[in-house]
Amino acid sequence: MFEYQERLRKTKERMAIRGIEVLLVTDPANMNYLSGYDAWSFYVHQMLIVIDEEPQPIWVGRYLDANGAKAKTWLHEENVIPYPDYYVHSSEFHPMDFISDILKQKGHGKKNIGVEMDNYYFTAKAYEQLKKNLPNANFKDGDLLVNFVRLIKSDQEIEYMKRAAKIAELAMYKGSESIQVGVRECDVAAQIYYQMLSGTEEYGGDYPSIVPLLPSGDDTSIPHLTWTDRKFKEGDAVIIELAGCYKRYHVPLARTVTIGTPSKELEKIAPIVTEGMDDVLSSIKPGMTCSEVEQIWHNSISKRGFEKEARLGYSIGLNYPPDWGEHTASLRREDDTILQPNMTFHFIPALWFDKYGIEISESFRVTEDGCEPFTTYPRDLIVQPPFKMNKQGGKIS
Amino acid sequence: MFEYQERLRKTKERMAIRGIEVLLVTDPANMNYLSGYDAWSFYVHQMLIVIDEEPQPIWVGRYLDANGAKAKTWLHEENVIPYPDYYVHSSEFHPMDFISDILKQKGHGKKNIGVEMDNYYFTAKAYEQLKKNLPNANFKDGDLLVNFVRLIKSDQEIEYMKRAAKIAELAMYKGSESIQVGVRECDVAAQIYYQMLSGTEEYGGDYPSIVPLLPSGDDTSIPHLTWTDRKFKEGDAVIIELAGCYKRYHVPLARTVTIGTPSKELEKIAPIVTEGMDDVLSSIKPGMTCSEVEQIWHNSISKRGFEKEARLGYSIGLNYPPDWGEHTASLRREDDTILQPNMTFHFIPALWFDKYGIEISESFRVTEDGCEPFTTYPRDLIVQPPFKMNKQGGKIS
Repeated sequence: MFEYQERLRKTKERMAIRGIEVLLVTDPANMNYLSGYDAWSFYVHQMLIVIDEEPQPIWVGRYLDANGAKAKTWLHEENVIPYPDYYVHSSEFHPMDFISDILKQKGHGKKNIGVEMDNYYFTAKAYEQLKKNLPNANFKDGDLLVNFVRLIKSDQEIEYMKRAAKIAELAMYKGSESIQVGVRECDVAAQIYYQMLSGTEEYGGDYPSIVPLLPSGDDTSIPHLTWTDRKFKEGDAVIIELAGCYKRYHVPLARTVTIGTPSKELEKIAPIVTEGMDDVLSSIKPGMTCSEVEQIWHNSISKRGFEKEARLGYSIGLNYPPDWGEHTASLRREDDTILQPNMTFHFIPALWFDKYGIEISESFRVTEDGCEPFTTYPRDLIVQPPFKMNKQGGKIS
Repeated sequence: MFEYQERLRKTKERMAIRGIEVLLVTDPANMNYLSGYDAWSFYVHQMLIVIDEEPQPIWVGRYLDANGAKAKTWLHEENVIPYPDYYVHSSEFHPMDFISDILKQKGHGKKNIGVEMDNYYFTAKAYEQLKKNLPNANFKDGDLLVNFVRLIKSDQEIEYMKRAAKIAELAMYKGSESIQVGVRECDVAAQIYYQMLSGTEEYGGDYPSIVPLLPSGDDTSIPHLTWTDRKFKEGDAVIIELAGCYKRYHVPLARTVTIGTPSKELEKIAPIVTEGMDDVLSSIKPGMTCSEVEQIWHNSISKRGFEKEARLGYSIGLNYPPDWGEHTASLRREDDTILQPNMTFHFIPALWFDKYGIEISESFRVTEDGCEPFTTYPRDLIVQPPFKMNKQGGKIS
């Protein structure tokens, strides 16, 4: 509970700087971060109302989710306000009308109200209804305000991420070893999920905010494809991008697997990627900017004749679908965020070409004097034998 | 491809009725429905632009997703327009600025432009940027316009849902039989996922848009909780709500499982729920309204002394996280949608009380003269023996 109060204090500090008196928190990760609320209820409108002069946020959501907010958070029961079910997915009633009434009743109708302008769970309609119902309020952009509080992790959060990392490693082993000629992509996804959720004997796993991405063959040039029924063939390359997740904290991990001998292109590019990764990971220190990190990568691969357009990585931690990225700092040229201890990133210097791609990634924590990878998974192409062997070394299938 | 053109034609018909010349389609399910585009790229801004006088929609998205739009849809390459990576999660650049430029260049800057106002993937910020950049456009609410085209399924869509139903049944068997004293909730979730994705020998499964919901014990009063590491105890009730998914088409299914003898409350309420379900399913006919369906349920349970506040169900089909519901018709008193053949619903007349809840559900298709359930899963409480038995009938654990 002390941790929640500390988070709230930091949130209010940032609210004061932006001139926000009342912050409407609609990002489910931010709701969880400030209250502990964790349920798959974000497909309906819900929020935490953070008021500068109140000691606790107020939860507002669908009435049948209110029991969860009462039982599973540090909020007092009187700070849990349910709206009736006829507001759900209705053409007549909108939950923001209900919420506007609450704000007016509590005397906040004329305040400086912050809203998370570019969050998935704050729609254009939600904003229009609030503006219509609260004509005397002064709306301000509170987007990513709480996300930036989340940027530096507490020791407890790092511990959760270490557990997520262990799950990510186990899932990557399980996924890569199940890639065999004749096996379907969906069966590999099934193996990965089984491992991600059953976790270890000491702790189970949570669902990741993005499903495992699993393009194979020519489709490795298309990074965000999910699985199909396609059966793997000898010579296929397969990209696995997944995350271990523990109590909504993510550690992503990507590898490229080949069935049998890798293509000439992959053989050429893989050591360039891993060399670049080593160059970056051995150079990172607190005080550097994200932009400087990108420069190290750029120098490393450009001397081998390659360039990369997409960002190299992004801050990670607590999240909900559709993204495990935090939307704060990105490892890219244009980002001047200064690295500090206990910032955590997914470093994914993937390269995509017209007919193939390669992904080898690492998640790391910035330490007092460098950085520490979350996993010990070998950073290289994973080469699977094209056929299962029996004990005498003969083909089984 | 003919199916896509037909869907586009129906969309344009509705656009004309609403006075929309250009529709910006941001709902990933609507994007898939009109183009076939299917990837986990909806965590960045992307859209289909449907123009009344153009034969194909235009896809606009992140450059590294453009290969997928070219390879996996019926769109011509020139109708796939990528934006550079520096627009992604940036504080300086917003993808809607890029998209506004496209609209202006193509001569649509002064048109009647429809936007999906209450969709997760059309944020308040997205709308503000469009309005700022296109001051001469006339924005109109195009929310759910394509969703309502999706309300009546084609035969191919029904076939996909039948496959999803088979997967839902298999996953429910697997999940319920793995609920045993001492087993963790996360391990049951792992079993369910394994079955949902590996599907059958003939076809694999896709990821459901909502993860399996799995509250147990006192938490059965909180329907949208996901799993934890909690171990099941004798006497526990467990709710399983899941969906089979095939090519993004969902068939949800919910059951309540008890370990050992059900509580008196559950024993009393279960037959009232199943009787109400039988009353409803045997009465549904095309031409009835959703409201009339609710009335049948209401009459059935009120004669037993019960009431239900939440809606009874909702239209289902193609979808992406965070919801498998279509956000069109709901089985509730206030909804006058008229049932027509090949509408499909998840009928989930769940009841929640302070300390427990019950969910027994059925997904169905409206037929020419009635309705047809998608699954044949027994509609009753599932009672698991509290201990595994050996072949002689003795306890194993």
